[in-house]
Amino acid sequence: MNPRPAVAWIGQLDGYLQLIDQTLLPTQDVLIDCRTVEQVWEAIKSLRVRGAPAIGVAAAYGVIVGCQSQAELPRSEFDARLTHVLDYLATSRPTAVNLFWALDRMKATAAEQPDTLLSSELLSRLLEEARTIEVEDRAMCAAMGRFGAELLANCSGVLTHCNTGGLATAGDGTALAAIFAAAKANPKLQVYADETRPLLQGARLTAWELLQRGVHVTLICDSMAACVMKLRRVQAVIVGADRIAANGDAANKIGTYGLSVLAKAHGIPFYVAAPSSTFDLTLESGELIPIEERAASEITNGFGKQTAPTDCPVFNPAFDVAPAENITAIITERGVIQPVTVDNVRKMIKG
Amino acid sequence: MNPRPAVAWIGQLDGYLQLIDQTLLPTQDVLIDCRTVEQVWEAIKSLRVRGAPAIGVAAAYGVIVGCQSQAELPRSEFDARLTHVLDYLATSRPTAVNLFWALDRMKATAAEQPDTLLSSELLSRLLEEARTIEVEDRAMCAAMGRFGAELLANCSGVLTHCNTGGLATAGDGTALAAIFAAAKANPKLQVYADETRPLLQGARLTAWELLQRGVHVTLICDSMAACVMKLRRVQAVIVGADRIAANGDAANKIGTYGLSVLAKAHGIPFYVAAPSSTFDLTLESGELIPIEERAASEITNGFGKQTAPTDCPVFNPAFDVAPAENITAIITERGVIQPVTVDNVRKMIKG
Repeated sequence: MNPRPAVAWIGQLDGYLQLIDQTLLPTQDVLIDCRTVEQVWEAIKSLRVRGAPAIGVAAAYGVIVGCQSQAELPRSEFDARLTHVLDYLATSRPTAVNLFWALDRMKATAAEQPDTLLSSELLSRLLEEARTIEVEDRAMCAAMGRFGAELLANCSGVLTHCNTGGLATAGDGTALAAIFAAAKANPKLQVYADETRPLLQGARLTAWELLQRGVHVTLICDSMAACVMKLRRVQAVIVGADRIAANGDAANKIGTYGLSVLAKAHGIPFYVAAPSSTFDLTLESGELIPIEERAASEITNGFGKQTAPTDCPVFNPAFDVAPAENITAIITERGVIQPVTVDNVRKMIKG
Repeated sequence: MNPRPAVAWIGQLDGYLQLIDQTLLPTQDVLIDCRTVEQVWEAIKSLRVRGAPAIGVAAAYGVIVGCQSQAELPRSEFDARLTHVLDYLATSRPTAVNLFWALDRMKATAAEQPDTLLSSELLSRLLEEARTIEVEDRAMCAAMGRFGAELLANCSGVLTHCNTGGLATAGDGTALAAIFAAAKANPKLQVYADETRPLLQGARLTAWELLQRGVHVTLICDSMAACVMKLRRVQAVIVGADRIAANGDAANKIGTYGLSVLAKAHGIPFYVAAPSSTFDLTLESGELIPIEERAASEITNGFGKQTAPTDCPVFNPAFDVAPAENITAIITERGVIQPVTVDNVRKMIKG
């Protein structure tokens, strides 16, 4: 059973972009039909769609939505509109690298076409490119799912952290794709989902996705993961990554480093699932990945209520780094890096 | 500087019980003057006063509040009232062992007095006993503070979990007493306080107490503790305990076990501070301490907002057990158990 994707194009050239409004999850499951580029812009800006790959796909389809009404106009007018739409969408979330990457692909696709092509034909090529971006992402997720499921084949329980699923990608996600595939092979698989403070992506999004797909999920607080390992309720931990250094050190949502230490102490394999685009081979090790600190209010006023003293000093690192020595294997769309060494990373990513 | 205690008797025989309303912390700092036994009952019932020793002291003073108006009546009438008050207060929180222990001490004190004693004299003896219970608790806290501060003497940073401070006791607390004493000796000491999901006692109470006392505190999410250790920001972890087995295994707020594993992995000493009454030498090891599971809603609807899907399965253990092998030392009011072995525990607790 495939649930509705987080990002979908409905119809053909005169179709529209449909999104799950992630700001309303998990209490309301609402679809937004974006029929204007302003709606797409607002959805990205307001985090109704989130997760790097999902944002990229939404922006690519946003270009189609923004140019549809000009399809019968002369190319000069269409081209002017296209430039405007690309520039406009780029302002929706200026720190999202995948947003620019997707818009650049759409721009390059337009640039490759002859000036003599009809506007409607050009729009058609652009829709093809947007669909290709989506299909490629879906294929990467599927590949990580396949490779990951093999590693999880003998588990009766698995622990995950943050959200790495279909809500963040066009497909099934990264670490969660592996879990979905493993649960398909073993429907009894029990998934323990860390709630993932401070922003609770595990509680709000991962638990929701797993329930939607009929996978057995048990929500825990982050501080309970060690207890779950001690009780032998999980035989593997699998997480995503935001950035991976040349030696395999993996930066990911805060809490990941601690999980990697706990997994090692309990003799439990610790897996990272991330597409090859996550690797930054210019970084020798994770020590060079700067730790971003976020607003104190995420911790002090996280649940719609002030839960700490006013002006209490806070340390709120957004990420930490699991060292390669704690990572059993890294799952990419190209294959599995195991053991995690500089050479094996280079072979898989550069080779 | 000593802040107001969480539980205090104001005045003499015609005085009253004053409490900090802990349900309003950390956003409002409100004192409740309890001048009727019904007010004391309600304060215990509604968790306005919490923490085993603090509840015991509040109940003991509650007996005085409940019997004051009968001080000029004949003993038979006074005694009937006393029995009623003792029975009534015992219903305020039927699972709080310290509540019964304190009420039993008050009852025994009354039973020891001659029948010929005037009601006002008996009331006076009862007030003495309540004060003794308070003073003893305060002395235990002070002793743990002294012993603990010696262990923390060379730390520039220390990590703690949950609330083990003045709000839970008549004195400075257990683990937090050690931190207060250490901060007095070294005012630059930096305390990292885990917020302690699901009930956030660290964010709501510990951070508040430390700020009140002018101790440097930094609030973190539980998942950030490993990162703080990795960054070498702390040189010790110190926590309380709810129950300690004969071999030194210590049951405490969920998350404690994980911290003990992380501290060991980082070569950081892990201390437990608890009065000798916490030890249960009939339990051979922590394996025999049952893990209480609490309501799912603590995790899914923690602070006035639903943060997980409706009906999401949850695992919510209230406690876990730090094994003796992960505990560098146990600090009691009698002295420090180090190393933590069956023999050393027995010598300190039985000896």
